[in-house]
Amino acid sequence: MGNQEERFLKLKERLSEILNLRAVFALLQWDEEVNMPPGGAESRGQQLKLIAEMIHKLETDPLLGDDLVYFIERQEYLAPDDRAMVREAMYDYQRSIKIPEQWVGKFAQARSKAYHSWVEARSKSDFSLFQTDLEAIINLCREKAELLGYANSPYDALIEDFERGVDTKLLDKLFYELEIEQSKIYQTILQRGIEKSVFEGKSWDTEKQWEITLRLLNAIGFDFNSGRQDRSVHPFTTNFDIYDVRITTRLNPDYLFSGIFSSLHEGGHALYEQGFRKEDRGTCLAQAPSLGIHESQSRFWENIIGRSYPFCKFLLPILKEYFSSELEGITPEIIYKEINRVFPNCIRVEADECSYNLHIILRYRIEKDLIEGKLSVSDIPECWNDLFKSLFGYLPPNDAYGCLQDIHWAHGSFGYFPSYTLGNLFSAQITEKMKSTLDISELIAQGDFIPIRDWLKEHVYKVGRRQCSRDIVKDICGSDISHQPYIAYLKHKYGEIYKVSW
Amino acid sequence: MGNQEERFLKLKERLSEILNLRAVFALLQWDEEVNMPPGGAESRGQQLKLIAEMIHKLETDPLLGDDLVYFIERQEYLAPDDRAMVREAMYDYQRSIKIPEQWVGKFAQARSKAYHSWVEARSKSDFSLFQTDLEAIINLCREKAELLGYANSPYDALIEDFERGVDTKLLDKLFYELEIEQSKIYQTILQRGIEKSVFEGKSWDTEKQWEITLRLLNAIGFDFNSGRQDRSVHPFTTNFDIYDVRITTRLNPDYLFSGIFSSLHEGGHALYEQGFRKEDRGTCLAQAPSLGIHESQSRFWENIIGRSYPFCKFLLPILKEYFSSELEGITPEIIYKEINRVFPNCIRVEADECSYNLHIILRYRIEKDLIEGKLSVSDIPECWNDLFKSLFGYLPPNDAYGCLQDIHWAHGSFGYFPSYTLGNLFSAQITEKMKSTLDISELIAQGDFIPIRDWLKEHVYKVGRRQCSRDIVKDICGSDISHQPYIAYLKHKYGEIYKVSW
Repeated sequence: MGNQEERFLKLKERLSEILNLRAVFALLQWDEEVNMPPGGAESRGQQLKLIAEMIHKLETDPLLGDDLVYFIERQEYLAPDDRAMVREAMYDYQRSIKIPEQWVGKFAQARSKAYHSWVEARSKSDFSLFQTDLEAIINLCREKAELLGYANSPYDALIEDFERGVDTKLLDKLFYELEIEQSKIYQTILQRGIEKSVFEGKSWDTEKQWEITLRLLNAIGFDFNSGRQDRSVHPFTTNFDIYDVRITTRLNPDYLFSGIFSSLHEGGHALYEQGFRKEDRGTCLAQAPSLGIHESQSRFWENIIGRSYPFCKFLLPILKEYFSSELEGITPEIIYKEINRVFPNCIRVEADECSYNLHIILRYRIEKDLIEGKLSVSDIPECWNDLFKSLFGYLPPNDAYGCLQDIHWAHGSFGYFPSYTLGNLFSAQITEKMKSTLDISELIAQGDFIPIRDWLKEHVYKVGRRQCSRDIVKDICGSDISHQPYIAYLKHKYGEIYKVSW
Repeated sequence: MGNQEERFLKLKERLSEILNLRAVFALLQWDEEVNMPPGGAESRGQQLKLIAEMIHKLETDPLLGDDLVYFIERQEYLAPDDRAMVREAMYDYQRSIKIPEQWVGKFAQARSKAYHSWVEARSKSDFSLFQTDLEAIINLCREKAELLGYANSPYDALIEDFERGVDTKLLDKLFYELEIEQSKIYQTILQRGIEKSVFEGKSWDTEKQWEITLRLLNAIGFDFNSGRQDRSVHPFTTNFDIYDVRITTRLNPDYLFSGIFSSLHEGGHALYEQGFRKEDRGTCLAQAPSLGIHESQSRFWENIIGRSYPFCKFLLPILKEYFSSELEGITPEIIYKEINRVFPNCIRVEADECSYNLHIILRYRIEKDLIEGKLSVSDIPECWNDLFKSLFGYLPPNDAYGCLQDIHWAHGSFGYFPSYTLGNLFSAQITEKMKSTLDISELIAQGDFIPIRDWLKEHVYKVGRRQCSRDIVKDICGSDISHQPYIAYLKHKYGEIYKVSW
């Protein structure tokens, strides 16, 4: 086999070069958010552009294609892991070469332009300032869909970047059913009336908050030998290797819980990145197959674990070590209610679990129509407000709180939003199954999170990119994507807090 | 000119790609020292190797050579700055292509091996563990000298990497004269007897130290919009652009002054990097022409400014804001004496100004003989001890405190050491001239450092790489490299402190 073995090593080297360059790119971005002095912005832009071009060149190298074809034709002789790696690399390669370099350049320019006009439009709440640049982005996305190809809707081609194996046909049905059920819950809870937070109007030392987040990350199994936490304006997770996974958090001196839940959310992403098989390290198998499944992990730790009653029991004594006088008289019940407070909020990123998916369904419908050419950009504000009114029963005060609130469209990330809701649904489906073998309430209350993390490692993390998200969930739960476990989860939680029997 | 202009733009783009990739490399290294969790080491090594190979490829690209030849032939049509840039780029290119890729690979491997055996050898104080790997390094350095070519000594070819325009002929004479004078001063001061430090045995809060270093950096003109300070085990300065210059410092809870002088030293390097002409940004002209001139700037701020009596007057009230009880009864005179204490010390990096150059002269003589083939590696420990005895009058307790103390040889940095002494000499020469227009004692005492920084900007920083270090100093002082201003500086300072009239 000599020659063939050598060629396979060369192929692995090519693929590992791409991953290493991507890690370099990610470090440049991480540093930009976490450390870079303002003066560094311009040259950082040049550095990012240069590395991005180099990545694209390697990803579309015809010699890489030749090697992949060669081994795809001989895949029966490859070990199963190598076969999976070649298959996934071939998938990436074939998608990359469909997008010409010229399009990549135009898209980068359009994004940069749209980003700046979006910032201005949002600050002035004036959609017209964003309209032309958004049109350019959408035209490029539609062009991309044509380049990539699709069976039914051009939007399907875009979804695939974020959620392989999912399409508009599936989402239309799923989101239709989800909306009906979730709207009912949301309306019922809202009618119970809104209580004031007992945590607002106080000051929470951010150094203490920082220490609490580190303790929680330690508790859930984040490995600080293979990662770190920093602060940034927008929390995120990145990695340069399974042994170098970095998260950021945002600490709010006026509110105790934003830092805690931000760290739990990013910590959930990080456990996934740290949990791939060592043997897959440095290959595309040590990757999540989709954004939705990644989001299921962050939302699992943030919401299903973090916003549960047993977690409040575990958390309160820790909080009291740092804020004893501020928390006098506070019980786990009060915290449980606080962190699950439901009230009208136009802003998606601040939404409670009761309404979150409704925000996504709204965006999904608008995006799909835009990409399918059924809605023109100038009609977005009106369409947004109509949909919002029908879902939430009131109107956003202005477009800054409406259709201008998210960065995603300025970034050209059409097809991204559905992943958030898929993450919610996956997390509930996976939890249902987990509960059949683990008494998670008891584990959470005792702060014994490692068996939970290990269960996820075994069933989710270790799979890496061998399966698509839908198949991972099918294998775990024995059923396809479904909204029912999530609805059951919401009914249980909010029924308990707001004393509702459904 | 159309076509030619386009070709020139393409050339500038090629050169700017090299600089951008070098900035990426520097960020990977900075992050490794400052932030990287231990687990990231292996993949960081791969990333550094990949980027280093890419840099080498761009630096030796024959198309770059063609463009450079084209414009060198037409240099009379270029603007002066463009002409200087092409000349310097050609110099770099011609040196790069003399070194085959195979040598680069072998050298990288040998360095990595030698580094590890040096760490072990030093920890066990057993030179034999390092010997074989050091021999390999030296053979490769001798090979490199042959590849690069030289007129008199192969060591000249290596010096050129650090100090263009300086050779063994010059250094032999300079160091001979310097040794005679500096030894006299050192012996005289040592005979005055050693006083105990009044600052030892106390504890100095590192958070407060950190704030003091930031205030000092601000005072000397470090621009935090275009840079930052962090902590690391070994302090260093790096930059990714003239608007993103980063330094690190090391704070010692047992000693107040190590962090302060470390920050002043690196701050001096940083002022240089932040002080290049804006117009030269992104070209090789925004670079120091040598290590020696760079070191003159760090040593200027650390020693000539920082260890001066007026600086003690300026510093003490600041220190007392943070450490009032610890510093009760302390006067500027006491601090001045403390930070200029002379006592026998085998370790170069801890040496006082009185003996520092003697440590360098010792290393210079050994290096030169090694590269010229006049000394074999196995004889290093004996040779070191003999030279040390003759220079310092006593023997190091073991090789860890002797020939194994520095990392430079394990790194393959032969020809590097002389730059430290050249930096000392340059700094004194430049200061003599500066004093003819600025009353620096008065400015220092008042903490008004900006006129001093601006003087250096005008005379040193702005030159960039247009001239070699020797020519910069000649232009400022009207005379060639000389040891006399430095000797005069030492005599003045130590005469004042130790009450000696020479």
